[in-house]
Amino acid sequence: MSKHGKVYLVGAGPGDPGLLTLRAARLLGDAEAVVYDRLIHPEVLKHARPRARLLFVGKEGGGESVAQEEINALLISQARLGRMVVRLKGGDPFVFGRGAEEALALEAAGIPYEVVPGVSSGVAAPAAAAIPVTHRGVSGSVTFATGHRAGKAPDWAHLAGAETLVLFMAGGRLEEATLALIAAGRSANTPAAIVEAGTWEHQRVIEAPLASIAARAREAAVGSPALLVVGEVVSLRSQLPSLSRSAPVMSEYAQFLKAEAGHE
Amino acid sequence: MSKHGKVYLVGAGPGDPGLLTLRAARLLGDAEAVVYDRLIHPEVLKHARPRARLLFVGKEGGGESVAQEEINALLISQARLGRMVVRLKGGDPFVFGRGAEEALALEAAGIPYEVVPGVSSGVAAPAAAAIPVTHRGVSGSVTFATGHRAGKAPDWAHLAGAETLVLFMAGGRLEEATLALIAAGRSANTPAAIVEAGTWEHQRVIEAPLASIAARAREAAVGSPALLVVGEVVSLRSQLPSLSRSAPVMSEYAQFLKAEAGHE
Repeated sequence: MSKHGKVYLVGAGPGDPGLLTLRAARLLGDAEAVVYDRLIHPEVLKHARPRARLLFVGKEGGGESVAQEEINALLISQARLGRMVVRLKGGDPFVFGRGAEEALALEAAGIPYEVVPGVSSGVAAPAAAAIPVTHRGVSGSVTFATGHRAGKAPDWAHLAGAETLVLFMAGGRLEEATLALIAAGRSANTPAAIVEAGTWEHQRVIEAPLASIAARAREAAVGSPALLVVGEVVSLRSQLPSLSRSAPVMSEYAQFLKAEAGHE
Repeated sequence: MSKHGKVYLVGAGPGDPGLLTLRAARLLGDAEAVVYDRLIHPEVLKHARPRARLLFVGKEGGGESVAQEEINALLISQARLGRMVVRLKGGDPFVFGRGAEEALALEAAGIPYEVVPGVSSGVAAPAAAAIPVTHRGVSGSVTFATGHRAGKAPDWAHLAGAETLVLFMAGGRLEEATLALIAAGRSANTPAAIVEAGTWEHQRVIEAPLASIAARAREAAVGSPALLVVGEVVSLRSQLPSLSRSAPVMSEYAQFLKAEAGHE
């Protein structure tokens, strides 16, 4: 084969298509194949060429997502066809994006690849909810973690001590996570918030003390994606009313999504 | 006054101008005034209109940086002249960017403003050094912290327990930070790396165990900006040789910077 394929592991940002990077947009415009997940905004995919192959590997409705091994094999086989492949991942590829697994698989297969960082949802979703993850005199550090881990429970004792904690994909195990944090010593009164679909048109924010945030989220039928933010920085929301009001700037697609999700 | 000013607190990303977001580029193109720091790449500023006012508020050479209060006052006075102002900050405005302070000042002054998240150096600089900050089975969380804090020492006992720790602006107090982490229980053999000027043309990476990284950085005369990364994920570098080789893609400005800095 004369033409060599290459794979770009590209962060697509948290949702808002304006938060895509210039480099990601350019690479999408050049890609012959785009392999993407469920949390990629449709407007982001419009940067791809009309004739690019768009390969969806996310979870559809109640179905199963494509296994990581199959995604790795797909990236390798597309590159071996000599194609320029963009592997689009929500947020940043290396922040719970399993990007390192894909990089290691490409490395082992001898396929050229690069990583293009993106805006992480862990920072941008709280910001869109008027929560600065750090603030002088309030929080000098922020920890990103996942609520569920392969074969191993999170170190709740450590996470309970974080100044600001951002827990990814907390939806499913929110009650377990909040109980574990309180059991590990975090005050039940700590300000907490759930940011559902941060920076998307249908973003929702729920704010409550740590002890009751899980119940409030259940009442509101919070879905995925959602982040749990725990820490004194959450209380800055009330001091930044202009920010909480300024919704992400978006298109008519917002109405469609809202209607589909059955929100008002 | 008929025209109302507005301030956009915009993350410019870690350095590489390709990591600017689409929205940031568009806002720069519309701005009448751009207030920027030292760590903004000159190529990023080229998105501004030829007639935009470019107001530099960073530290020049050995000089003093403009006090935060003065920057706040500048943003407010520019907006009160009816101008559209972009306040460009390295990385993300809310990750040690003092963006919350500026937001609170604008709120208090009744100036309309928005926050536009950017790619954080805390994720992108390690990525550019072939270090994924999280990786399944190796690190399920990452903590961003600063090595120096106003009036208060970092909670080293907590930070020593982080799976992956990314310490911002560690240059000045690197020895103090590494000694404190080891004293607080972090193994002296923990893999560590310094990423100087991550994603910039003159990026440098130094890798060593936690106990000796400060000495190695001193030998190499590491400057600012620099991040310290501590954790097992640092050892993934050796398994991702393609990534460590793929330098940020940039312009002839690289040569200029290299020459100026006296690197080879």
